[in-house]
Amino acid sequence: MMMVGNLMRRRVVSWQQKALGQRIPFSTMTQNTYKDDHDCQILMSPSLVSLDHLPDLWPPDSTDFQFRSTKSHSNEQTAAVINGQLIAEEIRARIASEVRRMKEFIGKAPGLAVILVGQRRDSQTYVRNKIIACEEVGIVSKVTELPDDCTEDEILTAVSGFNVDPSVNGILVQLPLPRHLDVGKISDVLSLEKDVDGFHPLIIGNLAMRGREPLFIPCTPKGCIELLIRSGIEIMGKKAVVIGRSNIVGLPASLLLQRHHATVSVVHVFTKDPEYITREADIVFAAAGVPNLVRGNWLKPGAVVIDVGTNPIEDPSCEHGYRLMGDVCYDEAVRVASAITPVPGGVGPMTIAMLLSNTLDAAKRAYNFT
Amino acid sequence: MMMVGNLMRRRVVSWQQKALGQRIPFSTMTQNTYKDDHDCQILMSPSLVSLDHLPDLWPPDSTDFQFRSTKSHSNEQTAAVINGQLIAEEIRARIASEVRRMKEFIGKAPGLAVILVGQRRDSQTYVRNKIIACEEVGIVSKVTELPDDCTEDEILTAVSGFNVDPSVNGILVQLPLPRHLDVGKISDVLSLEKDVDGFHPLIIGNLAMRGREPLFIPCTPKGCIELLIRSGIEIMGKKAVVIGRSNIVGLPASLLLQRHHATVSVVHVFTKDPEYITREADIVFAAAGVPNLVRGNWLKPGAVVIDVGTNPIEDPSCEHGYRLMGDVCYDEAVRVASAITPVPGGVGPMTIAMLLSNTLDAAKRAYNFT
Repeated sequence: MMMVGNLMRRRVVSWQQKALGQRIPFSTMTQNTYKDDHDCQILMSPSLVSLDHLPDLWPPDSTDFQFRSTKSHSNEQTAAVINGQLIAEEIRARIASEVRRMKEFIGKAPGLAVILVGQRRDSQTYVRNKIIACEEVGIVSKVTELPDDCTEDEILTAVSGFNVDPSVNGILVQLPLPRHLDVGKISDVLSLEKDVDGFHPLIIGNLAMRGREPLFIPCTPKGCIELLIRSGIEIMGKKAVVIGRSNIVGLPASLLLQRHHATVSVVHVFTKDPEYITREADIVFAAAGVPNLVRGNWLKPGAVVIDVGTNPIEDPSCEHGYRLMGDVCYDEAVRVASAITPVPGGVGPMTIAMLLSNTLDAAKRAYNFT
Repeated sequence: MMMVGNLMRRRVVSWQQKALGQRIPFSTMTQNTYKDDHDCQILMSPSLVSLDHLPDLWPPDSTDFQFRSTKSHSNEQTAAVINGQLIAEEIRARIASEVRRMKEFIGKAPGLAVILVGQRRDSQTYVRNKIIACEEVGIVSKVTELPDDCTEDEILTAVSGFNVDPSVNGILVQLPLPRHLDVGKISDVLSLEKDVDGFHPLIIGNLAMRGREPLFIPCTPKGCIELLIRSGIEIMGKKAVVIGRSNIVGLPASLLLQRHHATVSVVHVFTKDPEYITREADIVFAAAGVPNLVRGNWLKPGAVVIDVGTNPIEDPSCEHGYRLMGDVCYDEAVRVASAITPVPGGVGPMTIAMLLSNTLDAAKRAYNFT
């Protein structure tokens, strides 16, 4: 399968579509359209507190963005590419600015602690990227590395230490853990106020329930929604299909889409006709962890596709010996969808940006800084 | 609209379909088929620990129960009526037996405390019914009544008192509360081990997440699933639509159906074409709180319909001045569906039976009695 590096450069769905107050024909959207005069307005999405009260993005009669009729499987690319890298950079710049303001006013920087267990190459890469991202925005990070065969007590001790460390505002345990360690038990011990990954069941319960607000929204689903909002894609009233029901992505993504008043269906391994159900969706979140699962004929023409899959595929020609492949067959989907995230460069960078955002929020709460 | 009292007696879908290991033609199913030798187990739902591992109910090639082709809107009744009253009686009898065994072995009976605020007629009826049901199975109940204008502190004090009362194993606050009282705050104070209604966000989070188990399953959704299982209706792999997303019914019902491996879609007020989506479903849970919302043409022929609606409709000819009407237009649905719950006599009695079941479970845990 051809990777998407070049496609990413072809078309960019810009958050500034909305800033301009009207829809830009896709044919005119290039990276160049990204920079315009409207750079004073950076956040397009409502604040977390008002998640349930989205403003109308466009006049009611012009919400046909998702429904443009396109020829299925034509040779032409119909989809605008949602550039997660670029959007994440914008968010990180905002976070850096906030961190500077925080240091200036109260002399404190947010702190993130990462616990890494074992030698998994992909986990090491993810942790390294998170640490670099922290440094770039001024968040102070520390990493505790434990061996593959560490005991549960060792990891619980590390978590407990960070729980009481006032310089640490966020704690994350890089997943997956070796099989002998109980993720749930570790998550239960982690201080709720520092659970920047948002994996605790109390956070999931509060995310699910009306009238309640979670302390944090899990990073990947939060990043996906941010991509939609910044791309001017309306969620309310749309049919959304989430493929996969993991605790980390599929489940919270379905709950979050529902909070934004989408009509959500969750497709999983026991779903008998996943392609039929997915083909009904205006918005598809693919988070099954299966490379190329979602083919072009799974998609309704004009659907918006958020590909959460980051499946490492061995490839000796790549720098680290592997490359990342999404859950969506990109080459096919790009000819059916109206907008799509590439892999890499779509959801991945947003996950890290949301981790930084959650850590900043945690620090603001801890220091009562607004 | 004709009410369903007589229909209830015509056909009964019995949980013994499953016990007998084969499907019973509906024409032969009467109240008499209900009693057999399998009286050792209270609920047919798998235990909480094994929720994800349902046994096959029928051989794979005979799961056509939900898909019997019927003429839509013929004059003929196609649906078997799921007699919740009868099934609930059976469950209550088993609970009574367990309570007797508990008293005999450890000299303790389960205790349920109910807090009733204000003079709502329907709430008073519900509480009265719960108390009677407790008495019938040997659960000791106590009721604290507070005036409409009571303060939040008064209700929190009542809850806290029951939290530390060792004779109380379950606590429920009858909803809805007057507007000036914060349900969430009260729910947060209520001891998790005694939250037999299952409304705490930690319970909802644990219900939602893989690898976790809630202490209790909220009563109404638990009763709905029990009705399906006892009626021999397979859930795994089926398309389920939940209409409504309340914290008490719609949300936990969708999470519970998903735990049983249904493919779940949640329909709500912002869903643009609820009838179209509902018509795709093999199993429909109607929990919108809107009388007669679901018409016959919302249903796929052969669908299974669980009507959670209990909408009080003023009717001076009825004993209490009102009668209950479901969310489903019964007269139409009964000619399209393959199985349906009546209102009253469907889900309602099951909710109370599940409350008793949760209270018994809480007592068993508290006294470490198995």
